[in-house]
Amino acid sequence: DIIDKKLKFYAINAYRVAKETGMGARINTIMQTCFFAISGVLPRDQAIEKIKEAVQATYGGKGEEVVAKNFAAVDATLANLNEINVPDKVTSTKKRPPAVPEHAPEFVKNVTARIIANEGDQLPVSAMPVDGTFPTDTCRWEKRNIALEIPVWDPDTCAQCGKCAIVCPHAAIRMKAYSESCLKGAPKTFKSTPAKGAEFKGMMMTVQVAPEDCTGCGVCVEACPAKSKKDPQRKAIYMATQAPLRVPERENYEFFLDLPEFDRGKLNIATVKGSQYLQPLFEYSGACAGCGETPYVKLLSQLFGDRAIIGNATGCSSIYGGNLPTTPWAQTAEGRGPVWSNSLFEDNAEFGLGFRLTLDKHKEFAGELLTRLAKDIGENLVDEILSADQSTEAGIGAQRERVATLKQKLEKMSSPEAKNLHSVANALVKKSVWAIGGDGWAYDIGYGGLDHVLALGRDVNVLVLDTEVYSNTGGQMSKATPLGAVAKFAAAGKPIAKKDLGMMAMAYGSVYVAQIAMGANDAQTVKAFVEAEAYDGPSLIIAYSHCIAHGIDMLHGMSHQKAAVQCGYWPLYRFNPARIAEGKNPLQLDSRAPKISFEEYAYSENRYKMLTKSNPDRAAKLLKKAQESVLARFHQYEELVKAYAPVVEEPKAKAAAEAETAAAAR
Amino acid sequence: DIIDKKLKFYAINAYRVAKETGMGARINTIMQTCFFAISGVLPRDQAIEKIKEAVQATYGGKGEEVVAKNFAAVDATLANLNEINVPDKVTSTKKRPPAVPEHAPEFVKNVTARIIANEGDQLPVSAMPVDGTFPTDTCRWEKRNIALEIPVWDPDTCAQCGKCAIVCPHAAIRMKAYSESCLKGAPKTFKSTPAKGAEFKGMMMTVQVAPEDCTGCGVCVEACPAKSKKDPQRKAIYMATQAPLRVPERENYEFFLDLPEFDRGKLNIATVKGSQYLQPLFEYSGACAGCGETPYVKLLSQLFGDRAIIGNATGCSSIYGGNLPTTPWAQTAEGRGPVWSNSLFEDNAEFGLGFRLTLDKHKEFAGELLTRLAKDIGENLVDEILSADQSTEAGIGAQRERVATLKQKLEKMSSPEAKNLHSVANALVKKSVWAIGGDGWAYDIGYGGLDHVLALGRDVNVLVLDTEVYSNTGGQMSKATPLGAVAKFAAAGKPIAKKDLGMMAMAYGSVYVAQIAMGANDAQTVKAFVEAEAYDGPSLIIAYSHCIAHGIDMLHGMSHQKAAVQCGYWPLYRFNPARIAEGKNPLQLDSRAPKISFEEYAYSENRYKMLTKSNPDRAAKLLKKAQESVLARFHQYEELVKAYAPVVEEPKAKAAAEAETAAAAR
Repeated sequence: DIIDKKLKFYAINAYRVAKETGMGARINTIMQTCFFAISGVLPRDQAIEKIKEAVQATYGGKGEEVVAKNFAAVDATLANLNEINVPDKVTSTKKRPPAVPEHAPEFVKNVTARIIANEGDQLPVSAMPVDGTFPTDTCRWEKRNIALEIPVWDPDTCAQCGKCAIVCPHAAIRMKAYSESCLKGAPKTFKSTPAKGAEFKGMMMTVQVAPEDCTGCGVCVEACPAKSKKDPQRKAIYMATQAPLRVPERENYEFFLDLPEFDRGKLNIATVKGSQYLQPLFEYSGACAGCGETPYVKLLSQLFGDRAIIGNATGCSSIYGGNLPTTPWAQTAEGRGPVWSNSLFEDNAEFGLGFRLTLDKHKEFAGELLTRLAKDIGENLVDEILSADQSTEAGIGAQRERVATLKQKLEKMSSPEAKNLHSVANALVKKSVWAIGGDGWAYDIGYGGLDHVLALGRDVNVLVLDTEVYSNTGGQMSKATPLGAVAKFAAAGKPIAKKDLGMMAMAYGSVYVAQIAMGANDAQTVKAFVEAEAYDGPSLIIAYSHCIAHGIDMLHGMSHQKAAVQCGYWPLYRFNPARIAEGKNPLQLDSRAPKISFEEYAYSENRYKMLTKSNPDRAAKLLKKAQESVLARFHQYEELVKAYAPVVEEPKAKAAAEAETAAAAR
Repeated sequence: DIIDKKLKFYAINAYRVAKETGMGARINTIMQTCFFAISGVLPRDQAIEKIKEAVQATYGGKGEEVVAKNFAAVDATLANLNEINVPDKVTSTKKRPPAVPEHAPEFVKNVTARIIANEGDQLPVSAMPVDGTFPTDTCRWEKRNIALEIPVWDPDTCAQCGKCAIVCPHAAIRMKAYSESCLKGAPKTFKSTPAKGAEFKGMMMTVQVAPEDCTGCGVCVEACPAKSKKDPQRKAIYMATQAPLRVPERENYEFFLDLPEFDRGKLNIATVKGSQYLQPLFEYSGACAGCGETPYVKLLSQLFGDRAIIGNATGCSSIYGGNLPTTPWAQTAEGRGPVWSNSLFEDNAEFGLGFRLTLDKHKEFAGELLTRLAKDIGENLVDEILSADQSTEAGIGAQRERVATLKQKLEKMSSPEAKNLHSVANALVKKSVWAIGGDGWAYDIGYGGLDHVLALGRDVNVLVLDTEVYSNTGGQMSKATPLGAVAKFAAAGKPIAKKDLGMMAMAYGSVYVAQIAMGANDAQTVKAFVEAEAYDGPSLIIAYSHCIAHGIDMLHGMSHQKAAVQCGYWPLYRFNPARIAEGKNPLQLDSRAPKISFEEYAYSENRYKMLTKSNPDRAAKLLKKAQESVLARFHQYEELVKAYAPVVEEPKAKAAAEAETAAAAR
């Protein structure tokens, strides 16, 4: 095309220019400058002047530093823009690779790949699944290769804590433990080291990067707590240019994926480390590099994905969760993985409830049929199935085997009842029902339904990915938006405090509620997920999710989470009604009293800081109000812990003790 | 018709039979017995047997006592059923009175009366108001005369406390204070006595019954605390047969209504007594005799009705509030009264918010125009209007006069701005915006919107008439239904505790919240209304409303309210965010620790008690759970009071004191 159309062809290493001028990975100003420099729409000098005026107007509110960086980027662009001389005929022998590899499944090759290649319009309707159900686990075929740099693992420095893996938004850095014999035939650059921990005794382990799926966000390196003894600047994970690593690490990653999965039943999944030895069943989504939501979603997929049924509210998570043509929700080698669907913005909790009601009914029906058919099936098997303890991974695994045996038996039976039982037998294995969505759903548009589902007492788990703003539609204020933050429809800073969804849900007394922030306390995050899922009733997890809408460097997203907790703005807690029966306080406050100011946290984020430019007086007023509100609210949480403390009948106890003393004295 | 059709004609004093057999005012069983006794559908003995079987089946769940009463009623029916001998031509000279009196307004005579007379179908469309707005204050023309007995006032015994008036569901018993000269021309049975209280010095007062509007519920007599010294069985209000009183009391009532209203600005309206000297602007609705909702609605109309704008959710209150053909919402002599409309079940809070936003915009626009036109209008008047203090009744009255003057001036001006100002000038007088509805609206169907309105911080007042069940549609469970109560969709007793709407709203910290029960503490009820309305932000009042759906004798409705509070089930409290700025605790718990058991309260109501018949084991289990839940919840409220206590920086204060002591010691 270039030759045919006699195009002038220019190139610029815009990412290098951006990096050198402090713009990070933002190249929009640079590319705009290129356009005006080349197009001749305006005389070059005049164009540069206009661009700088536009920069001032657009970014002035974000501070002088941002403006200065953009100016520097504009100036550096012109020096780095090169024209490429094009020959008058094609000389290259390179060809565009296929959209997906040859060994991809038929549907992926015939449908998914064509959409990836921008040929979706040419697909006949008959190519689409008849019932609208799309296969999951297809993101893995879309190798995007968008990272300039990817993490590299240093096994000698690694503490094997799992922190790099748990924070990765794209499941692009993983851990596996395996017996040494598995290393036979490993690619020569494949790294391995003895696995630490009693459960892995005598085994090897690897931390492996997916080089073509990694977005290069660097969050894993930030999260890594282990520093090299040789070079204290270098951690157990460090960034390196992707290009030279692409081919060898691709081979390593393929080898890694083929290693056997560790037995779920033998892992302590309620820990950061244990959870990260579980296979992610949510991988390589199209979420932003450094996304604050997807680490939670991925964790959920690791812990419960092999038996999860998920309703997803409209929002970022419905986009990256089921963005045609590919689906990040994945499957185990046995073909088990989350069933996922996006309903509407206004009914997702109810949508999740529908799954629950259906499963409960199926299970009840299966139970009735089992009892009726007990003689034909075998009393022992029926008893075992009906009395199975599925509170552990091992218990669930055992039940799966029983149900497989049952289904084999049923296939040999011809009665209508046997057929009915076969059709609902899967409901006898414990399922994990989730409603997932953002704050726009949970605090606002879907709140009426969410409240109703929480009130009904059924076992539905709710995960709120709280970015405190309508992220997907461009940053509009929600009831989760904090006091003082700037958002669309709150251009002068929100004057009202954030809705305390957790406190409202706790008022029921019968709802499991946790407020979490992975960047502040990843262990508490994992515990909350495990407890919420185990609780036989409604559960609500409110997860602090940093977001590009916060005006932060996403590399440091987890640090912002930490600061939000340290200043007391985002108290971590777990309210577990199951503890009441045990005579324990249901409410556990998992974070300490504020030790930094709200300002220190808030003014590290442009959503707050920009108001100090546009309206300094109001900014100061709102900051003061927000600081007061944070302290008052934290105090209330401390008092709530006391309020929920089990009531000890002290007067009676005292009277009894006195009576005893009196009796003894006689 | 009787003569023409040669009908056999029977009569029974069914109310007497009901009363004598302990059935109260329930005559359905008696009338059913009459039907079978007369119709000959079945042989009489067999019919009686069948009726008794049906009674056992229908009321067995409500206890043996209820069944026995019904059996007695059946037996007594036959002895009291008399055939009336009908002459073969009409001999009576009596005529059916007109549906409304001759002096009713034209619209009432031409439209309302015809609908009352069952001739609505014959009205032409052109008779209807063009914009759909129906005139208010029309219930007064529909004299129903349904009471067998009405209250009689004994001025010598009366303490003038206002308790009879405040509890009256139909505004059929009222108080007025007036100068003695007004008594000129009073009907000869009109009663009067010197008014007590400093503000009424030298004046007379009357407690007057509306004999034809009273439903005879007797709640006023129950509420009266004053006993006659001569006859301790008799209170300052006692019931007497209506018939002989109808004509004289009708005259007395008409005379009473014509007496001048006491100056609102001179009353202490924040008290039970003071509020009951205010004219009710909600009267003679079609609510059940003894209704637990309407006393609150009537109180609202007395306190704020002359400047209220009300959105009403679907439910009982939308039926009795605007039941064609008549409207209980009324007007003062000056033509001021509530503007009222029923929107939908699912959007009433938002509907109320719309009123608020409109008023605020009108007020803002009026302010701008006032400033622009200040020279033409007069700087002084403009200043006075814009800086008016409308926090008192007197202040509002003064502003009304200023706005009247302004409008007179504007009428003489011809500029478009003057016309615009004239059209929005009324918004300069403080309005009172209310969203009213039941628990089905506030806890369930409209909760998403209610929560949103509470979160927005605008000055909308919300009154929840909490009957704990969908009363209007027949008693279905709502999220307000308490643990252990039987309701439709909760036939085995609700297993989950009532949603704590107040606690959830308090979580915002910026919403005025009150939980009230007039029968337990009427003074707190009045205070809550006044504070809620005064608070410049969203307010929520949750009002315990006893209901026929509770399975109680409505005569004792207020006693049930009291028991609900005494057992700790319904804590009374007020949460006023305005107190925070004053350094006071925003949360005031207005009721004491439980002093009776939950059982004592609950088992006085059939909604709870019937479960002890149908499922005694489950009843016992739920009762225990409910009792525990009540105690735990009350404890939480007590602790919440501590949690909201203003934070005193004790450590610092202590350190400073120590430093001072140390300095002094040097």
